[in-house]
Amino acid sequence: MSVIKNIQWLGDAETGLLRLLDQTRLPGQEAYLDCRCAQEVADAIQRLSVRGAPAIGIAAAYGCVLGTQQNQFDESAEQLARSRPTAVNLFWALRRMARVVPRTPEALLREARAIHEEDAAMCRKIGEHALALLERHRRGKQGSAEAIHVLTHCNAGALATGGIGTATAGIYLAHQRGLPIRVLADETRPLLQGSRLTAFELAAAGVHVTLICDSMAAQVMRSGRVDLIITGADRIAANGDTANKIGTYALAVLARHHGLPFYVAAPSSTFDLETPDGSRIPIEQRPDQEITHGLGGPTAPRGVEAYNPAFDVTPADLISAIITEKGVIEPVSETRIRQVLGAGEAAG
Amino acid sequence: MSVIKNIQWLGDAETGLLRLLDQTRLPGQEAYLDCRCAQEVADAIQRLSVRGAPAIGIAAAYGCVLGTQQNQFDESAEQLARSRPTAVNLFWALRRMARVVPRTPEALLREARAIHEEDAAMCRKIGEHALALLERHRRGKQGSAEAIHVLTHCNAGALATGGIGTATAGIYLAHQRGLPIRVLADETRPLLQGSRLTAFELAAAGVHVTLICDSMAAQVMRSGRVDLIITGADRIAANGDTANKIGTYALAVLARHHGLPFYVAAPSSTFDLETPDGSRIPIEQRPDQEITHGLGGPTAPRGVEAYNPAFDVTPADLISAIITEKGVIEPVSETRIRQVLGAGEAAG
Repeated sequence: MSVIKNIQWLGDAETGLLRLLDQTRLPGQEAYLDCRCAQEVADAIQRLSVRGAPAIGIAAAYGCVLGTQQNQFDESAEQLARSRPTAVNLFWALRRMARVVPRTPEALLREARAIHEEDAAMCRKIGEHALALLERHRRGKQGSAEAIHVLTHCNAGALATGGIGTATAGIYLAHQRGLPIRVLADETRPLLQGSRLTAFELAAAGVHVTLICDSMAAQVMRSGRVDLIITGADRIAANGDTANKIGTYALAVLARHHGLPFYVAAPSSTFDLETPDGSRIPIEQRPDQEITHGLGGPTAPRGVEAYNPAFDVTPADLISAIITEKGVIEPVSETRIRQVLGAGEAAG
Repeated sequence: MSVIKNIQWLGDAETGLLRLLDQTRLPGQEAYLDCRCAQEVADAIQRLSVRGAPAIGIAAAYGCVLGTQQNQFDESAEQLARSRPTAVNLFWALRRMARVVPRTPEALLREARAIHEEDAAMCRKIGEHALALLERHRRGKQGSAEAIHVLTHCNAGALATGGIGTATAGIYLAHQRGLPIRVLADETRPLLQGSRLTAFELAAAGVHVTLICDSMAAQVMRSGRVDLIITGADRIAANGDTANKIGTYALAVLARHHGLPFYVAAPSSTFDLETPDGSRIPIEQRPDQEITHGLGGPTAPRGVEAYNPAFDVTPADLISAIITEKGVIEPVSETRIRQVLGAGEAAG
C-alpha cells in the first residue's frame, strides 16, 4: 500500500526543496508544487494547496528550512505566520522551529523532520487503536471473509496530516494488513472534501471507496451497507462534546437511530479541557457563496440567502468512543477523557 | 403574491400557443419557451424544461391542442408519448385527451384547461389543510408575531404542478394570508432541485427562503431554527410508508430525534394501495455521474464509484401526518388512509 505523500522534503538541508501535493488541483489532477523559498510555502498554505492543521504546521516547519538556506529565518517565519492567521498548529510549529539552535539548515531540517515524524507516529498510533476496534466489529459479523463497511465524512485523512490521517488511520492499517474493508465517503457539501480529497487518497492507496451524497447516509445505514462510522474532530470539549465538519452531528443521530457505533478519531491535541461542553464552542459561519455558487456557476437564484455553518457539535452521548493516540476513550465522559489523556499533560 | 407560472396557454384555441418556463435555464435565467406544435412540447418535456408528474401531464394535454390546430392529433399524441416513457401522468393525460369529442381545438383546449384547473384545485385543497396545520403550530409558539419556520426538501412546488405545488401549497397560502412564514430549503444533492427550483419559486413569490446544504438540517433543527418539516411524495404504500427524493428519510429520523413534526403533502393519486408497504417499492438507481460530476466539472477523482439511489422510503411511523386534497391522514395507518381517501376510489 502506498499512501499519498502530500509533503516531501527532497535533497539535503543546504540545497533541498519542499514538494507539496497541490490539493487545489484535486480531484482533476495529481500535481505537485516544488517550493524553493519560504514565500512559496506561505503562498501554498494561503491558497489551500496544503490544508489540514497538522499538514500546515509541518509545511511551515520545512518552510523555515528553505528560508534559512538563504539566511532569512526571521523574515521567513513572518511570511509563514501571515499565511493562515487562525491556524493554531502553524504557530506552534513556528515557535518550535524558532527554539532550534544553532539556526542552521541541518539543525532546522532535523526539527522539521521530527515534527513530521511525530505527526506520522501519532496517526499510526490512532490507527492501531482504530484497527483493534475494526477487528472487534469484524469478529461480530457473520462470515469472516465479509468486509467491514466504514462510513466517513469530510477529510481527516493523510492529506490533512503528515501520516495516514486520523479518521482514515485504521482504514489504511486494515487495508495494509489484509483485513477486507470498504469505505463509504460522504461527498461533504459545500466544499466536497469527501469526494475531492477522501475518495482521492483512499482510491490512490487502493482502498475500495464508494462516494455518496450526504443525504444518502441514512438510506445506506438502513439498508445494512454500513457497520460503523468514523469521523475526525476539530475540537473536543472536556465532556466529550465534539465539533467537526457540518454534517457530522446528523451522522451521529442517524447512527444512534440505526444502532450503529459512531466513533471519533483525533489526536489528544484536539481536546480543549478548558471548554466544559459543546455549547461553549463557537460555530464559524462561512460565506453564502459556498452554497449558492459552486464549481464554476451559480447553484441558486441570485439574491437567495443561505445559512452556512462550517461545523456542528455532536454531543458526547451520541459518540460510542473517541480514538486517540493515547488510547480509546470509551465510554465518552470527562472522567474517562482525563484518565486516558492524563489530565496534567492534556490541559496544557 | 404571484406564484410563478410554469405553464400558460396564450390566445385562443385555433391560433394560441403554449408558453413554458424553461426549467433547464434556472436558477440563472427566467426564460420561457413558446411552443407552437406538439413536437416542441415533446422536446421540452424530454429535455426537462418542464418536469414534475402533474406539470408533464398538463403540458402534454396542451400539446394535443397544438397538434390539432394542424389536424394532427394522433401524430401529436404519439410524439408526446415518446417524450418521457415512464411518466404515468403523461399517459393518463393523453388518454383523457383522446376521449374528447369532437376533436376540435376548442373542445381539446377545454379539456386541457380542465386538467390544468383540477390540478390547481387539488394543490389549493392540500394547501388549505396544510395551512390549518401551520396555524395550529403557530398558536403553539410563544409570541404570535413570530414566524413559523418550515424545512422542505427537493421540489414539490408550483414548478412541478399546475398550481401552488404540494409541499409548498400551505406555505404559499400562509404567505398570501399574512401568516409570517419562513422556509428553509435543503439544496437537495445531487441535482439541486431545492436550490435551483424551490428557492427560485419561493423567492419569486416573495416568500422568505434560506438555502442550506442537506447535511445542515440536523444542526438547524437542534438550534431551534425549524418548527416543522413538509416534503412531497413520489409513491405512498397502503400502510403509509412513503417513497420520496433521497434525503427525505434522513429528515424524518432527524425530526423524530428533535421532537419535530414531519409532514408529507401529496395528492391522493400518489397512493398505491396495491403495494402493502415500503419494502415493496423499488428504489431507482441513477448514474454515478450525477454525483461524480456536476455543474461543468468533475467533483470526484476519475474512476471512483458512487452509490446514487434516487429515492428513499420513510416508514409510516416517522410521519406525523399525510396531507392530501381529501383531508389530513393523522395518525398514519392503513385504516386511516382508507378512511380519508375512500378505499373504493383510491384503490383504482
